Amino acid sequence: MKDKYDFVVIGAGVAGLAAGMYGARLGLKVLVLGSSHGSEMPVGGVITTTNLVENYPGFVKLTGAELAENIENHAKSYELVTINEEKVEKVSKSGKGFEVKTGKGDYFGKTILFATGTKWRKLPDSVKGGKEFENKGIGYCALCDGPLYRGKRVAVIGGSDSAAKDALLLAEHAKKVYIIYRKEKIRAEPINLERIEKNKKIEVINNANVVEVEGGDFVKGVVLDKEYKGKRELGLDGVFVAIGHEVLSELAEKLGVKVNKKKEIVIDHKTAETSVPGVFAAGDVADKPFKQAITGVAEGCTAAWSAYEFIKKEG
Amino acid sequence: MKDKYDFVVIGAGVAGLAAGMYGARLGLKVLVLGSSHGSEMPVGGVITTTNLVENYPGFVKLTGAELAENIENHAKSYELVTINEEKVEKVSKSGKGFEVKTGKGDYFGKTILFATGTKWRKLPDSVKGGKEFENKGIGYCALCDGPLYRGKRVAVIGGSDSAAKDALLLAEHAKKVYIIYRKEKIRAEPINLERIEKNKKIEVINNANVVEVEGGDFVKGVVLDKEYKGKRELGLDGVFVAIGHEVLSELAEKLGVKVNKKKEIVIDHKTAETSVPGVFAAGDVADKPFKQAITGVAEGCTAAWSAYEFIKKEG
Repeated sequence: MKDKYDFVVIGAGVAGLAAGMYGARLGLKVLVLGSSHGSEMPVGGVITTTNLVENYPGFVKLTGAELAENIENHAKSYELVTINEEKVEKVSKSGKGFEVKTGKGDYFGKTILFATGTKWRKLPDSVKGGKEFENKGIGYCALCDGPLYRGKRVAVIGGSDSAAKDALLLAEHAKKVYIIYRKEKIRAEPINLERIEKNKKIEVINNANVVEVEGGDFVKGVVLDKEYKGKRELGLDGVFVAIGHEVLSELAEKLGVKVNKKKEIVIDHKTAETSVPGVFAAGDVADKPFKQAITGVAEGCTAAWSAYEFIKKEG
Repeated sequence: MKDKYDFVVIGAGVAGLAAGMYGARLGLKVLVLGSSHGSEMPVGGVITTTNLVENYPGFVKLTGAELAENIENHAKSYELVTINEEKVEKVSKSGKGFEVKTGKGDYFGKTILFATGTKWRKLPDSVKGGKEFENKGIGYCALCDGPLYRGKRVAVIGGSDSAAKDALLLAEHAKKVYIIYRKEKIRAEPINLERIEKNKKIEVINNANVVEVEGGDFVKGVVLDKEYKGKRELGLDGVFVAIGHEVLSELAEKLGVKVNKKKEIVIDHKTAETSVPGVFAAGDVADKPFKQAITGVAEGCTAAWSAYEFIKKEG
């Protein structure tokens, strides 16, 4: 006999946890499943790897882990919410609802929320040594691994605001931080761009690509596709890859949920409904240009309300 | 010479304040104007009249005033944000932007955000005494005026979740609270419905309309359109009207912004864009079925990002 829930939330990042809280307020029996898609992400999701969150309205400044913990505790304050660290393996239609299979259990949900988020994109196969030095000096989480590079030289590969924030964070530990970006100008938020320009430890190398990661037991440097200060080799102790994310929508796609070219789940932004009745999506996995903790959390709440309305209507 | 801003936010509720904070993070010079539309609402907006907010993810429980203050302080932590308590009288197209006239000043904004919200709907003219006893026992803000009714008898007119929350709040002070609702069953959130059912001070009168408010210098009771416990008169010391809100979109409509039948501003929910380029809307004034502090705040942030993108594109 499967455990039955009104609302099964797949993904326990801030969007999923907020959805759980809101669903319980609406009287729904909610199951939130973390560690989805084998991302090995703890409950709290990808924001737990962000050092400084200054743009979640209501909190002037806190760490990503603190924000996630606040929202997790908020969800846990309702008895109707169960949060399990289980990896979801399959979601399929089952009678008037859905069956959700994990490695540990088998659940029934009248409605489903995909809040599965994204995971870091890896260096392309064309970069020599990109795989070899994975976890031997190539990392993704500046917050997690930054302190290992105290007094050392590191590079961030990428030009997004996340890359900029990683560089700023690494500069608190390392003696030198390079940002290596393939285009003309990094796309950081103006406030972060200013911080980077003022930070003497940080040097931006524009219009450059890493073609090789070199080293012995551990990363010793990278080779660029053009000269920088007279040579193509750059000596480094660590490399942080910040070239974007992969959207974790595979389970949804297999269920028949419509996704766009970027593999984002297409939703009605008023209601968080997907193309499949009873299935909702929220957070980084959904199709929108502006993805932030605050918007994902709001979508989670909207999805919970829509799930409640759906169940009420279906009787 | 008019003061020039990148982003003028009309309305200083939580959606407007969050937009101000976010705009400043993106390097925009922001003006937030409160007390719009003569609503005489203080900075902080309508949520300041809510006693208990339990559904803004990250805060298990706080008052509406506290939430508004947190977000106001968040906005104020950026030098680029100016918050003025001024009533906006007119918004018009001006060159490559917009002119915003208040009773006190005249401003230019490259972009505009309408976060003007809503105000309480008053009793219809058909209710005898409805105007006469305004502020003489007829009120709208249970949080503000509830404590005046310690040990007394009050009624809430309306059947929404807000009406239910008002009744619960009033029951903390009054000895008796009636909910008078014109339909079969009040539409409270399940958690609030349960609280009402358990509260011995609260009595729900369904399928009933108030046809008259009676009194001398002050409210003494109401007359219903049907008998309740054998009579149509109900002795009361105060009446709280909770029959919904009027959307404050008039300034936007005059600017040529598209509104729907409910007078809500029609937006693209991915970007908060309205039908007029450079003009955005967020919060309760926008067209969506699910209106909460968290969704309004997220829309405010989205609007700030869209304004930033708009200005970047226009050069």
